[in-house]
Amino acid sequence: MDAQNALAEDKVLLREDRDGVATLTLNRPAQFNALSEEMLAALQAALDDLKEDEAVRCVVLAAAGKAFCAGHDLKQMRANPRQDYYERLFAQCSRVMQGIVNLPVPVIARVHGMATAAGCQLVASCDLAVAAESATFAVSGINVGLFCSTPAVALSRNVSPKRAFDMLVTGRFISSTEALSFGLVNRVAPDAELDRAVAGLTADIRAKSPVAIRMGKAMFGRQRSMSLEEAYAYAGNVMACNMMAEDAAEGIDAFIEKRKPEWKAR
Amino acid sequence: MDAQNALAEDKVLLREDRDGVATLTLNRPAQFNALSEEMLAALQAALDDLKEDEAVRCVVLAAAGKAFCAGHDLKQMRANPRQDYYERLFAQCSRVMQGIVNLPVPVIARVHGMATAAGCQLVASCDLAVAAESATFAVSGINVGLFCSTPAVALSRNVSPKRAFDMLVTGRFISSTEALSFGLVNRVAPDAELDRAVAGLTADIRAKSPVAIRMGKAMFGRQRSMSLEEAYAYAGNVMACNMMAEDAAEGIDAFIEKRKPEWKAR
Amino acid sequence: MDAQNALAEDKVLLREDRDGVATLTLNRPAQFNALSEEMLAALQAALDDLKEDEAVRCVVLAAAGKAFCAGHDLKQMRANPRQDYYERLFAQCSRVMQGIVNLPVPVIARVHGMATAAGCQLVASCDLAVAAESATFAVSGINVGLFCSTPAVALSRNVSPKRAFDMLVTGRFISSTEALSFGLVNRVAPDAELDRAVAGLTADIRAKSPVAIRMGKAMFGRQRSMSLEEAYAYAGNVMACNMMAEDAAEGIDAFIEKRKPEWKAR
Repeated sequence: MDAQNALAEDKVLLREDRDGVATLTLNRPAQFNALSEEMLAALQAALDDLKEDEAVRCVVLAAAGKAFCAGHDLKQMRANPRQDYYERLFAQCSRVMQGIVNLPVPVIARVHGMATAAGCQLVASCDLAVAAESATFAVSGINVGLFCSTPAVALSRNVSPKRAFDMLVTGRFISSTEALSFGLVNRVAPDAELDRAVAGLTADIRAKSPVAIRMGKAMFGRQRSMSLEEAYAYAGNVMACNMMAEDAAEGIDAFIEKRKPEWKAR
Repeated sequence: MDAQNALAEDKVLLREDRDGVATLTLNRPAQFNALSEEMLAALQAALDDLKEDEAVRCVVLAAAGKAFCAGHDLKQMRANPRQDYYERLFAQCSRVMQGIVNLPVPVIARVHGMATAAGCQLVASCDLAVAAESATFAVSGINVGLFCSTPAVALSRNVSPKRAFDMLVTGRFISSTEALSFGLVNRVAPDAELDRAVAGLTADIRAKSPVAIRMGKAMFGRQRSMSLEEAYAYAGNVMACNMMAEDAAEGIDAFIEKRKPEWKAR
Repeated sequence: MDAQNALAEDKVLLREDRDGVATLTLNRPAQFNALSEEMLAALQAALDDLKEDEAVRCVVLAAAGKAFCAGHDLKQMRANPRQDYYERLFAQCSRVMQGIVNLPVPVIARVHGMATAAGCQLVASCDLAVAAESATFAVSGINVGLFCSTPAVALSRNVSPKRAFDMLVTGRFISSTEALSFGLVNRVAPDAELDRAVAGLTADIRAKSPVAIRMGKAMFGRQRSMSLEEAYAYAGNVMACNMMAEDAAEGIDAFIEKRKPEWKAR
């Protein structure tokens, strides 16, 4: 093991950048990547960095070891039995989840093993999710007397109400196939081909205009809570701005001339 | 027939409690359990009682005879052809539907036979639904010149818009399989195993912490109409309170110690 | 070719009325029915006429040639590279889309070939959609550097967020089967039976009470953005008015008397 790997093993969150794709890897495999305060702080710091990083085209959220993420760190939570501690902890966690939603570039969950409680919330909070065939999903806090309230916020904005409530009150695990049919994940790949499936999706995104993707993600999130009329007024304005960007001119000209477009690096 | 059964046969709504599960049974089988004023009043009274009943862990809404519920009592409606009567009737019915939504414990529809118009609305209004394989669902008021407007409120909050509108304008029946794929029901069981499937779900819920289930149901309903930011602030607060409850401490300790939790009776 | 057909070939939008069904046909087949300013103006004029036409029971939106609609007219857009032009264009297009939503009668998309970008938005904006088996759907503006922002408004109100975002950032085509499973279309028919499937649906709607369908469509759209309590108050009022209409009395009486109802022509 070389020095860099030794260092990496100390970090709860790893970041690797390649070809405009930043991969964040949850790195507490022995604890099934539980979201301790330290992990949440590391995620927040990474999101804050990514927000300013114009070289990044999309983010993959992955995890080391056997599980994607088992949710909060229950031992740490029980060691701090104070209302104000919990208020701060859930606020910290909710900031991270909203940080994913508000990141300027698409975030893809790469899910293997189990994604439970706040781990399932991470999947729901990402813009896109690719799951290994053997991956399983649950909002299982109810099994330890703790209803997954903050995970329910993300889950119920992805999955229809009866399905979300079923998962929340029974704590039952659903398969990747069921997660796909619920709209909780976008793609399911055989376990051995998970990385290839994620790479296919990141390649799709990297082939697009950076400025159009960034404009689009921000617009998509904001318009959802608007009335139809407000949403159209807003989206029409965004789209007019998008048309004035060099990439739209280049893209349309390339289309008309039947050639490949050359995007501005941004 | 003994005296108790004779009495039961006179009541339009039966209630039976067992092991923390209150089963309400619509009991106008000859009228396919049509929601007459009397039936709605009986449902409202039962919901009002259940709201205060801390021994109840979950509610099953079932029905006697060949059908689950055929909706409003059309004969009674035609016998009272006045706008103010209809205003009062639909307000009464809407109060019942919202009473299900606002009950502190989960409500499970046990659906067999047909569930039409306000009968389908009952299914949509319940938190969870288990259907017999042969059950069918329709919002069929349009067939008698009466668009299912109040049922549409519940249906369109469960089922995607094109699917809901299709059902509303065609009045067509959908199968239990289609209802499952639409998210209108959670589970489909062979007819002979419907009670077993319902019992499985109530057993799942009864095995959880009563306080966590109650906190969770209230939170789930309220956060749905909030913005993401508001919903997180609210859910984080609820979850911090949940962590301060004895059951969460017990549940997490039991999990860490690999034993079964002992919930507070509430 | 007779004089009428020669004239029809000059028009970008055709209208044919039969048995209460108005069929609008996008008629720029050589341009894959691209939504030029002229096409949007013709659609707006047709919608304005239909809004006042009490003889119309439902509208079918169809298209001539190999494709349903390929979205905006990219050549025309590139020929007018000004922010104010684009603002006006997207406002004009958004008015058309909302005109479909706000039409008093149901609008059915009859989709064959490809429906891309604003063409896919047309499908999403219709109340109902019937697709040929070989039809494909995409919001593919991102491929030319133009994120489909206004189509996203309609799409994300029909399809769950991860599925909509996937389509928007990858620009990928989905099949009619996938569109059905996403809730973007209601029915898929073998290509040769598309017209029969559409005719089946229009026949279903024509068999209903005109006044009940019109009341219902308006109510359905409006209640969606309301809180549960507001929606019930509003829908209850609409339904009481519906009960006071002659058709409801006739429909219920016919049902009780086991005969076919005779609707008022309106």
